Amino acid sequence: MSSVFTKIIHGELPSYKIAEDDKFYAFLDIHPLKEGHTLVVPKHEVDYFFDIEVDLLQEYIIFSKRVAKSIEKSVPCLRVGLTVIGLEVPHAHIHLIPIHGVLDRSASCVDLEIAPDRML
Amino acid sequence: MSSVFTKIIHGELPSYKIAEDDKFYAFLDIHPLKEGHTLVVPKHEVDYFFDIEVDLLQEYIIFSKRVAKSIEKSVPCLRVGLTVIGLEVPHAHIHLIPIHGVLDRSASCVDLEIAPDRML
Repeated sequence: MSSVFTKIIHGELPSYKIAEDDKFYAFLDIHPLKEGHTLVVPKHEVDYFFDIEVDLLQEYIIFSKRVAKSIEKSVPCLRVGLTVIGLEVPHAHIHLIPIHGVLDRSASCVDLEIAPDRML
Repeated sequence: MSSVFTKIIHGELPSYKIAEDDKFYAFLDIHPLKEGHTLVVPKHEVDYFFDIEVDLLQEYIIFSKRVAKSIEKSVPCLRVGLTVIGLEVPHAHIHLIPIHGVLDRSASCVDLEIAPDRML
């Protein structure tokens, strides 16, 4: 069965697309911790981030850098943080989260997918 | 002035080294959230992760993948999470944190460098 992210990539579920190329898709998180909180996913379904093969992983981080730089231009923030946990949706995904200060607790990942009521 | 990480890389401050090559250095976090919590830093000082130039960023993520795979073999865990916040130490660094379950709050980054009492 396709992952929820594959359904989003194929347009079977709605999303607010931020960027796309032949291998990756970036869209706004449905439960953003901050304005601009974006998920970046590879179109090829791989469950675990560090199981992504070397070539694709290199392209993935560069695509994510491009998206992060776009977020910086669009959303007031100090910089963009990155986190990968990935236990609930079996499709690797990078969270890109605008950070506004050292004590900005919303940069944390506690409220991301490790919270039981959060499936995306 | 050299960053605290550069001092660690040069042996001016102690560390428990996990891996090293000509461009990167990985060592155990001094305040681990979990056994095996590791920091991976580029030897070339760059403050902001997404300012790292493309070639080095690609090598950085592949080096981190190798370290993560080693952590998986050495520490009982479901997988290894990755997070980059990087506001306190002006030298980019990836946190690699063993994750033990969906509700494993220690996979979060709240207690990382965004906590005021934590400088590494």
